[in-house]
Amino acid sequence: MKHAWWLAAAKSVDQAMQARAVARQQQLTKPAGSLGQLEQLAIQLAGLQGRERPSIERLWISIFAADHGVVAEGVSAFPQAVTGQMLANFVAGGAAISVLAHELGASLEVIDLGTAVPTPPLPGVRVLQIGAGTQNFARGPAMTPQQARASLQAGRDSVLRAQQAGSQLFVAGEMGIGNTAAASALACALLNQSATALVGPGTGLDAAGVAHKAAVIERALALHSAALHDPLLALQLLGGFEIAALAGAYLACAQQGLPALVDGFICSVAALTAVRLNPSCREWLLFAHSGAEPGHQHVLQALGAEPLLQLGLRLGEGSGAALAVPLLQLACRLHNQMATFAEAAVAERPT
Amino acid sequence: MKHAWWLAAAKSVDQAMQARAVARQQQLTKPAGSLGQLEQLAIQLAGLQGRERPSIERLWISIFAADHGVVAEGVSAFPQAVTGQMLANFVAGGAAISVLAHELGASLEVIDLGTAVPTPPLPGVRVLQIGAGTQNFARGPAMTPQQARASLQAGRDSVLRAQQAGSQLFVAGEMGIGNTAAASALACALLNQSATALVGPGTGLDAAGVAHKAAVIERALALHSAALHDPLLALQLLGGFEIAALAGAYLACAQQGLPALVDGFICSVAALTAVRLNPSCREWLLFAHSGAEPGHQHVLQALGAEPLLQLGLRLGEGSGAALAVPLLQLACRLHNQMATFAEAAVAERPT
Repeated sequence: MKHAWWLAAAKSVDQAMQARAVARQQQLTKPAGSLGQLEQLAIQLAGLQGRERPSIERLWISIFAADHGVVAEGVSAFPQAVTGQMLANFVAGGAAISVLAHELGASLEVIDLGTAVPTPPLPGVRVLQIGAGTQNFARGPAMTPQQARASLQAGRDSVLRAQQAGSQLFVAGEMGIGNTAAASALACALLNQSATALVGPGTGLDAAGVAHKAAVIERALALHSAALHDPLLALQLLGGFEIAALAGAYLACAQQGLPALVDGFICSVAALTAVRLNPSCREWLLFAHSGAEPGHQHVLQALGAEPLLQLGLRLGEGSGAALAVPLLQLACRLHNQMATFAEAAVAERPT
Repeated sequence: MKHAWWLAAAKSVDQAMQARAVARQQQLTKPAGSLGQLEQLAIQLAGLQGRERPSIERLWISIFAADHGVVAEGVSAFPQAVTGQMLANFVAGGAAISVLAHELGASLEVIDLGTAVPTPPLPGVRVLQIGAGTQNFARGPAMTPQQARASLQAGRDSVLRAQQAGSQLFVAGEMGIGNTAAASALACALLNQSATALVGPGTGLDAAGVAHKAAVIERALALHSAALHDPLLALQLLGGFEIAALAGAYLACAQQGLPALVDGFICSVAALTAVRLNPSCREWLLFAHSGAEPGHQHVLQALGAEPLLQLGLRLGEGSGAALAVPLLQLACRLHNQMATFAEAAVAERPT
């Protein structure tokens, strides 16, 4: 495919700086390893940022919203109008991610990739309208190839804006009634798993609703089975505009050298799609939390991810990633500001 | 026992305000329950603070340091002089908890309850010198009854200072070479468990060192067995000055109505001691993290605690509690600042 920008290699991690960060960690006034995952996090960020003392101060959050044709199959507990209503809530400051972005001092960008119910123009919402939502993937392809490509590019464009603004961390979130179903179907395709193994309640289905969603997804997997070995086709046939935008954003982050913090189930499926399209992007992805959706564990395992938080979150919007940001910031500050044994005249373990 | 201040009842939780917080959570623009543990946290804090919209802004951290006679048995990887050296590091700003206190804007108080190696006067360290460390609990009582009582009171005094300063959350940390051994022995007594079930590497023992520590503790449990049914006696015979101060602080927090955020293994054993002395204090204790020490799980389970973080931490100093503070703050801000369905004109789930 021509102009497949997402296949270009990720930026290299600075191994020398990572080694210096490892050496610094061993000199700080604490038993070696006693800050657990936060030590590895600081070391990884040093390698990604090419600085012995990394820093996560300027934060960017992009929220990608879109609707899903598969809701015609009755796979969501909420009406589709909620996608547009939440767009208004994001920019008005009332949504969880709005509150978190404000508290973290983050730049918040809201992108409408294509809602089913027309929404009035909203100041602060970037409208792309790639389609009036996707088509129903249980009956045919969710997207055209052009729509998938435009969605990937939308994610990349956000990363370029984040980088232009001097951001040091890219957080992506999503909103879209029915997108747990789309992400579950895509995860089944990428992991070669059955729907019953991965499907869960999303934001509010009961047991009967979960069983119905699994059956809809099994039907879709059978319908598209000939093409699902190809991650790009799987994304186009089963995914959503916002899922493709997330994947494009993660790929662009890795190419541009901007660490990305991955949110919950839907973002993790987009991250897995990105890694299947271009494995070199994996090193640039940090994982914020392990959510309540059962398929999330499978996806995180396939990515070799060890998320920072396990709080039973299942909201999306990038909220879990935003909640993990203080841990990244404090990991950096501990790494940067703690005294060494020599500086503090503290005895190291006797040899 | 006369003047057993710790037996007085904890302040009552405001059930009416807690009910109002539950009702508010159900109206916020997110699927019910989708913020997981953070929803329960905001509701609990509303009940504790007696405010529908709780707030954790003014933060107090007390670090209790002391030495332990049991190090004569070779149960720690570090020399005892480190306790005093770390006192200097705490007030100089180089320790992990110093960096975290600074970043969180917390008041940090450092208390020397009794070190084995005399330390020069350190500006900023409050010196109580209850003893030159405890006695070796493998050979006799760790503390006299007077020392145990003075240590409990030291914790209470810190809480009264925190409250005087208008603090909204009390974080306690500890430092003391050998205190993982003392806490493990005390946990064995309180939980009626064998040392092999609970003992772990502390801040840096190898497998042989762990086995030796377990054997030392088994011997001590046999030596003191006649008295260990009484939590106050168990604390006196096996604990440490800082462990008793922590227990006293948690008890005083509950009586004074100041929520306390419990750090790792040693603080959790002190919390269990406090609850065994006076079960009414349990409601005022929040649990920050589940640490790397194997006994921590047993203690948390006995307390019915569901900690916020699982990051493989094993530093102490209150560092794990400090790292969890942003989650408490963000839980409050989400609860307080998110829009309701009505305010944002977002559709709730159809009935």
